[in-house]
Amino acid sequence: MKNKILALLLLTSSFIQAQEALFSGQQVSSPQVHEDHSVTFRLMAPGAESVQVTGDFLPSVKVKTPMGEADGPGKADLEKDEKGIWSFTTEALAPELYNYAFIIDGFKTTDPANPFLIRDVASVMNIFIVPGEQADLYRVQDVPHGTVASRWYDAQDLGFDRKLSIYTPPGYEQSDDEYPVLYLLHGAGGDEEAWLSLGRTAQIMDNLIAEGKAKPMLVVMPNGNVGQDAAPGAGSDGYYTPQFMTPETMNGKYEAQFMDIVDFVEDNYRIKADKANRAIAGLSMGGYHSLQISRFYPNAFDYVGLFSAAIMPREDKSGKGVYADFEETLKAQKDNGYKLYWIAIGESDFLYEANMEYRELLDKIGMPYEYTESEGGHIWRNWRVYLSEFVPLLFQD
Amino acid sequence: MKNKILALLLLTSSFIQAQEALFSGQQVSSPQVHEDHSVTFRLMAPGAESVQVTGDFLPSVKVKTPMGEADGPGKADLEKDEKGIWSFTTEALAPELYNYAFIIDGFKTTDPANPFLIRDVASVMNIFIVPGEQADLYRVQDVPHGTVASRWYDAQDLGFDRKLSIYTPPGYEQSDDEYPVLYLLHGAGGDEEAWLSLGRTAQIMDNLIAEGKAKPMLVVMPNGNVGQDAAPGAGSDGYYTPQFMTPETMNGKYEAQFMDIVDFVEDNYRIKADKANRAIAGLSMGGYHSLQISRFYPNAFDYVGLFSAAIMPREDKSGKGVYADFEETLKAQKDNGYKLYWIAIGESDFLYEANMEYRELLDKIGMPYEYTESEGGHIWRNWRVYLSEFVPLLFQD
Repeated sequence: MKNKILALLLLTSSFIQAQEALFSGQQVSSPQVHEDHSVTFRLMAPGAESVQVTGDFLPSVKVKTPMGEADGPGKADLEKDEKGIWSFTTEALAPELYNYAFIIDGFKTTDPANPFLIRDVASVMNIFIVPGEQADLYRVQDVPHGTVASRWYDAQDLGFDRKLSIYTPPGYEQSDDEYPVLYLLHGAGGDEEAWLSLGRTAQIMDNLIAEGKAKPMLVVMPNGNVGQDAAPGAGSDGYYTPQFMTPETMNGKYEAQFMDIVDFVEDNYRIKADKANRAIAGLSMGGYHSLQISRFYPNAFDYVGLFSAAIMPREDKSGKGVYADFEETLKAQKDNGYKLYWIAIGESDFLYEANMEYRELLDKIGMPYEYTESEGGHIWRNWRVYLSEFVPLLFQD
Repeated sequence: MKNKILALLLLTSSFIQAQEALFSGQQVSSPQVHEDHSVTFRLMAPGAESVQVTGDFLPSVKVKTPMGEADGPGKADLEKDEKGIWSFTTEALAPELYNYAFIIDGFKTTDPANPFLIRDVASVMNIFIVPGEQADLYRVQDVPHGTVASRWYDAQDLGFDRKLSIYTPPGYEQSDDEYPVLYLLHGAGGDEEAWLSLGRTAQIMDNLIAEGKAKPMLVVMPNGNVGQDAAPGAGSDGYYTPQFMTPETMNGKYEAQFMDIVDFVEDNYRIKADKANRAIAGLSMGGYHSLQISRFYPNAFDYVGLFSAAIMPREDKSGKGVYADFEETLKAQKDNGYKLYWIAIGESDFLYEANMEYRELLDKIGMPYEYTESEGGHIWRNWRVYLSEFVPLLFQD
């Protein structure tokens, strides 16, 4: 039997790595989520002098930065047993999708026992889910699943093909119905993959639709960096180190060309192509984009969502005056009417003040909006929650 | 200007990690592919006592395993400079997609400067591409791109929904044409993601079609592990450590239910639903599956590709006698006729003898096939080459 298993091991291309893992005793289980929602991290590293785990499940600590103190992820020490296996068990954790890394003798790295990682800009972090409550929206459950497609469109205003991600709801392909559309925009350093990987959009949509809490809809996730054709590694620029700010992300060009994306979707999918069936929302830079696009095209969207929006003055290089006449176009948007203008931000977000000022402007011009304030700062945990609160409000009549 | 950049950094959720990277001097470039195709690896690790790089770009070395000596990836030592940056530069490398890892004081880990990784079973490896020749097929080039969809189908024989990946060629959505289909099957430990990530199938198809070397076709990449609904982490089993052999991967059940997949594709896509426009191919276990499926349904596929096929006797638990009447069904397949039966294997593959014996059987019963022998063993490098050689032979009349 053992020989049979060994022979089967040979079937993989990871042959040698596999054997190293199998026979060097590296096969620890990490992370292990226990029934009581405590979590054990383990690392086989007999030669290490210190091992720590750092991640967003630990209480944050103050760290010094050139801009002053800021909140950083906490750290916890692992303890070594006689076999050289380091381990640390948390207290019971609240349901959530968490990320973490190990720090081995001061060197921050991934957990070799956990093949599940998510890239956030240029960092790659391990992830795990503590189930229950809100976090069950992030799990793949036994419900009907939508389709996720990675597709290229002709960005006519920009002159080259660009990639976007698109979620079509369960039953879309078998149906003759027409569907509404949510345009969902990423933040600085993100791309068309971010809402799917970090934001768990497909899982949230599948689960909300299965629970009857959201209408079946398409979710279009474009790439907001108009200088690139696709996410780092997925486009013609090949592999390179992603940057937070790519050129021309917040200078009006993206907003000016946005209707090319809407036209592409309306030409290629079976949807209801009118204002009542169009929503636009985004996080951080994507919230800024959503604000500007819905203002510059003031009669295009009945639903607008600003998640921790990066509201700040920016230089206009669109050639189309996208950022001009700010208040006038907002008033036009108000006069044209809409069903929902939804603003959400965390109480410790560094953009809190900017959002407060923007709300004061909206109050001044009498533009109605709904406002949600959460705990925490400028983090994906909040954006997943905002998405799952926003989506049930869409297209309900 | 500096403050402006720092302020923009705050826009990302990776805030603290980013600052650590920015201000701790961790910002080395790695790997750097030079004009002359040499490659430099760099790691900032002032406290480390030894750093090595291991990967498939280095000459393989003999390693001891419980089954005897085998080929393993070589290792090279990095040297430390006065700033604590370790580096190693290769000789000029042949064009290829390579993988690697660092070994820091004996601990194997990923390269923190390279966010591009691919999972192979339970291992995650960094990757890079040395451009030119064959490797240009693996790059995202400025050519028309097909769509890649991740979609669920009702696996009626198995009783639950399962995920598959599907590539539709450039122009599919705008066309009224009907297309042929290649069913492309993964190996043991793989899943519906393997041919896309490790096999670069979308890039190979886009580039071959753009060069006029391949007909536009759909490529359907199902999940061959009938005990799971989707890839590890992408299905209802959540996150767990992937195994090489999942239960019920090679016991006939997958082969028996395969026509559920064909029916789903033919019901849901605009394709030519006949034998002349159906191809099936796979690597290792997927080659075995392709052999068995095309034999058990002996009048369904005009094109069959066995890439390093895992030809071995297996217990039949299909309940449908999939593995019975082996020679008789092969003879039926021969008598029904087909256009191409293509076998490829590396000269040092551990399955070389098994494939030789199978060819002798085919010779004995007079069943025609084409045979290609390459250098090397049971590795993805070969399977990418086999795919790019096989696809141009399909649907040419």
